Amino acid sequence: CSRRGLAMAKSKFEYVRAFEADDTCLPSCWIVVRLDGRNFHRFSEQHEFKKPNDDRALQLMTRCAQTVMQELEDIAIAYGQSDEYSFVFKKNTKWFKRRASKFMTHVVSQFASSYVFYWKDYFKDQQLLYPPGFDGRIVLYPSNQNLKDYLSWRQADCHINNLYNTVFWMLVQRSGLTPVEAQDRLRGTLAGDKNEILFSEFNINYNNEPLMYRKGTVLIWQKVNEIITKKIKLPKEAEEKEVEVTRTKTQVVPLHCDIIGDQFWEEYPEILAEDS
Amino acid sequence: CSRRGLAMAKSKFEYVRAFEADDTCLPSCWIVVRLDGRNFHRFSEQHEFKKPNDDRALQLMTRCAQTVMQELEDIAIAYGQSDEYSFVFKKNTKWFKRRASKFMTHVVSQFASSYVFYWKDYFKDQQLLYPPGFDGRIVLYPSNQNLKDYLSWRQADCHINNLYNTVFWMLVQRSGLTPVEAQDRLRGTLAGDKNEILFSEFNINYNNEPLMYRKGTVLIWQKVNEIITKKIKLPKEAEEKEVEVTRTKTQVVPLHCDIIGDQFWEEYPEILAEDS
Amino acid sequence: CSRRGLAMAKSKFEYVRAFEADDTCLPSCWIVVRLDGRNFHRFSEQHEFKKPNDDRALQLMTRCAQTVMQELEDIAIAYGQSDEYSFVFKKNTKWFKRRASKFMTHVVSQFASSYVFYWKDYFKDQQLLYPPGFDGRIVLYPSNQNLKDYLSWRQADCHINNLYNTVFWMLVQRSGLTPVEAQDRLRGTLAGDKNEILFSEFNINYNNEPLMYRKGTVLIWQKVNEIITKKIKLPKEAEEKEVEVTRTKTQVVPLHCDIIGDQFWEEYPEILAEDS
Amino acid sequence: CSRRGLAMAKSKFEYVRAFEADDTCLPSCWIVVRLDGRNFHRFSEQHEFKKPNDDRALQLMTRCAQTVMQELEDIAIAYGQSDEYSFVFKKNTKWFKRRASKFMTHVVSQFASSYVFYWKDYFKDQQLLYPPGFDGRIVLYPSNQNLKDYLSWRQADCHINNLYNTVFWMLVQRSGLTPVEAQDRLRGTLAGDKNEILFSEFNINYNNEPLMYRKGTVLIWQKVNEIITKKIKLPKEAEEKEVEVTRTKTQVVPLHCDIIGDQFWEEYPEILAEDS
Repeated sequence: CSRRGLAMAKSKFEYVRAFEADDTCLPSCWIVVRLDGRNFHRFSEQHEFKKPNDDRALQLMTRCAQTVMQELEDIAIAYGQSDEYSFVFKKNTKWFKRRASKFMTHVVSQFASSYVFYWKDYFKDQQLLYPPGFDGRIVLYPSNQNLKDYLSWRQADCHINNLYNTVFWMLVQRSGLTPVEAQDRLRGTLAGDKNEILFSEFNINYNNEPLMYRKGTVLIWQKVNEIITKKIKLPKEAEEKEVEVTRTKTQVVPLHCDIIGDQFWEEYPEILAEDS
Repeated sequence: CSRRGLAMAKSKFEYVRAFEADDTCLPSCWIVVRLDGRNFHRFSEQHEFKKPNDDRALQLMTRCAQTVMQELEDIAIAYGQSDEYSFVFKKNTKWFKRRASKFMTHVVSQFASSYVFYWKDYFKDQQLLYPPGFDGRIVLYPSNQNLKDYLSWRQADCHINNLYNTVFWMLVQRSGLTPVEAQDRLRGTLAGDKNEILFSEFNINYNNEPLMYRKGTVLIWQKVNEIITKKIKLPKEAEEKEVEVTRTKTQVVPLHCDIIGDQFWEEYPEILAEDS
Repeated sequence: CSRRGLAMAKSKFEYVRAFEADDTCLPSCWIVVRLDGRNFHRFSEQHEFKKPNDDRALQLMTRCAQTVMQELEDIAIAYGQSDEYSFVFKKNTKWFKRRASKFMTHVVSQFASSYVFYWKDYFKDQQLLYPPGFDGRIVLYPSNQNLKDYLSWRQADCHINNLYNTVFWMLVQRSGLTPVEAQDRLRGTLAGDKNEILFSEFNINYNNEPLMYRKGTVLIWQKVNEIITKKIKLPKEAEEKEVEVTRTKTQVVPLHCDIIGDQFWEEYPEILAEDS
Repeated sequence: CSRRGLAMAKSKFEYVRAFEADDTCLPSCWIVVRLDGRNFHRFSEQHEFKKPNDDRALQLMTRCAQTVMQELEDIAIAYGQSDEYSFVFKKNTKWFKRRASKFMTHVVSQFASSYVFYWKDYFKDQQLLYPPGFDGRIVLYPSNQNLKDYLSWRQADCHINNLYNTVFWMLVQRSGLTPVEAQDRLRGTLAGDKNEILFSEFNINYNNEPLMYRKGTVLIWQKVNEIITKKIKLPKEAEEKEVEVTRTKTQVVPLHCDIIGDQFWEEYPEILAEDS
């Protein structure tokens, strides 16, 4: 081996590179990567998540998603609820030549490492018992309508699950039903029935529940003005002087609002803009 | 919306699920997922990795890879060097119906979260400054020979890079060359020339360098016998008695050995065995 | 074998079906199948095609393309020139569950069998010497603009090739240049130069050349009224009476017009209509 | 448009080429293309195919398959029965860079044009009423065993269908049952039962039926010696002399034999040979 040189030995094996398949995403489509926590039912119990919603867990998810948006390129919008987050890459992004595996693995690995890294900022004394896993997938949406419908689908899902969970845990925590009894009680009920149970039995108006629980979290880029203090020395003057300078930064901002109707998209037209 | 029921609202959007493409891997092929640290050149400088090899960093990589093998299913063997690790799933694995995105995202997310989780066990006082990212890809190999050639390719790569880096850093650290000077010095040299520089100028016999640096790390499953002490009470006897019990466990074991030649594969035939 | 039953014998092998990959086309995209004659340079010489354009060959191509549109489902428009034809399937077609292999193979096989079947209708005494082959590919276009640009690309290609070929063959056929001399003469010339040669040397105004040569052939569906004579017997009358009945049929119509500009698409908005 | 030059106009649209997806087949796998007649049930009735087997139709299919093997590259073996044919490309073929669409479309278009071209050689006075279509698919098989099992699956299918059809048409043609009655009679019968009906009611020993019906057709490449007569003039002799010269040619040969057992593969080891 050493006689013929290492490089020659290596080159003999290099044919294996040809087995790698091209996984370029179709141009001119929105690229969505959605991740979900792996076995988070068990994970949430072991880490004593508050039910039906744990603010620490939701805020940590959003912190990770913000990191993903800042560290990766060309993410136009993200939407999260429960233990899932969807990231939407710009329709015409050229990041990593649009290779699907790159998008998926960068998103989930950055999210997963951030989850452990920022854990203590949200969970304080609650120790993280083991490193969690996340599962990801990639989907392409050709038109703006398709993309909006995808996000609407996730938000409608948030709505349904949160209403169910809110009643379920009330029945368990306040009325003392077992999980099985609560499940039986809710079988076949419609949204209206669940609202009624909440109101008549627990005096809860569902519409007053926190928006973050009911709508999930939307992350968008926004320009913000930042006023900073700078010391400058003018040529003619002897001493430095403090001046206030306004700087425009673009940052990731969380919103908890409806994205099913048209209003959101009219308010933020730049998200879907052709050149985005 | 609430009038018609949430479920109905959701169902209107559910057509978007059909846009998800099937990414099932061809049956009867070895499935390899390889991950690489993202921007680890910068990362290693910021975290003061020892050059050319940092034991803490290499051992942390291996700790993460062990976690991946234990937490995920059907990984037959893994191989790592520098900031990369390859995981080989069994030829006939049915895990997650062989969906490529599942393999990739579970591997990289588990690895990434483990990297942060176990960081302090290896880096002690060296603080982790930010959550690192990893990039992953998936490749299929139809035959055992293809798979062995893939792993040989990675080990030959380890060999070449480590020899280069060993001389390079000697020239910089001991002879005081600048990085550019060291690079110039090594341009066009063959393996033999580099061995000669190491020996004549630094009195280093490259073959005595640690195996972990020269060969990388192979992770395989091995049965180990564990002797544990158990207290048992026999029916006829009045008191409990301590007995030693031998239990067989399967665990992930790191090796630093050649995998290019036949010897390794003859010693561990079960790795490539048809039913593996 | 017979003892255990044939069905049982067969079932042992049926696992091989799982190796077939799913090749469903992304929903909500235009599906284009383009075919080209295989080795048609040689084929056209062996069958003495008139140069630069052979009406028989062009009309046969169009006849085959019409058959493809009639026999297959959901083709909204087709465009052909020289020995190639592109077929555009409706954006939301569900034909064969949008499986790419079905679209490609049905198009090329129907086209190829038609080519031989209808050959004699166009080539009369010119015998077909051997069965020709065609190569096909499939491409998805997410937006209407992408699709129009695709068709414009093919028509611009027709334009460039036809102008070149028209001058080239004039130089060869009328001025007696060898093919190599004609090629040399045209090297580096622009469209304007070629128009000039045609006009000054051969008294040909390129814009008066037949549209079919310059623009290629567009195939679209059109409603046509057909007046047929029917014999009917009214209840009160003793004898049958001949009446003329107007029936609306949809048929494939060839056009030779510009499809790069907006006019064509404004005139036939139904081609790109959402429900098409 | 003409002002700026045609080439420039074209280049504006050329971005659409990037939408074409790479469909390279995984290296080191057998590539199988299977085609089936489209709506051949109807086609066979309209063209009065003899039931259960029409020699003319079967021989025409084989003639087309031979043409495919001769015109295309690297087909190691083909297998046909009824209105289907499978073509197996060599494991390491580099034809058209292993692009799936090329394999599929060349096979089906060559087959389809040949079907019409050679029709009259087999069907004589029976006019071909319209150009038939064929549907194709592509499947990869990583190991020799997988490939043999694929071919066994098709031959077992031939076996089952032919036995069924033989009895079915006897019951209809000889016993005067209607198709529905024949179907009812055969429901739930095993291979042994069908053999028994053939023997006891029609005095037919199924094993004496023609091999082509029972086994289908295997096409392989074989070297054959051809003796041709050549006129040569030796330098020293005055006159030309006729001599017999033996020339070795490779040609496509049809066989009707079992390919499920080992014997066939032992007899023709070159078909699966590594370098094939």
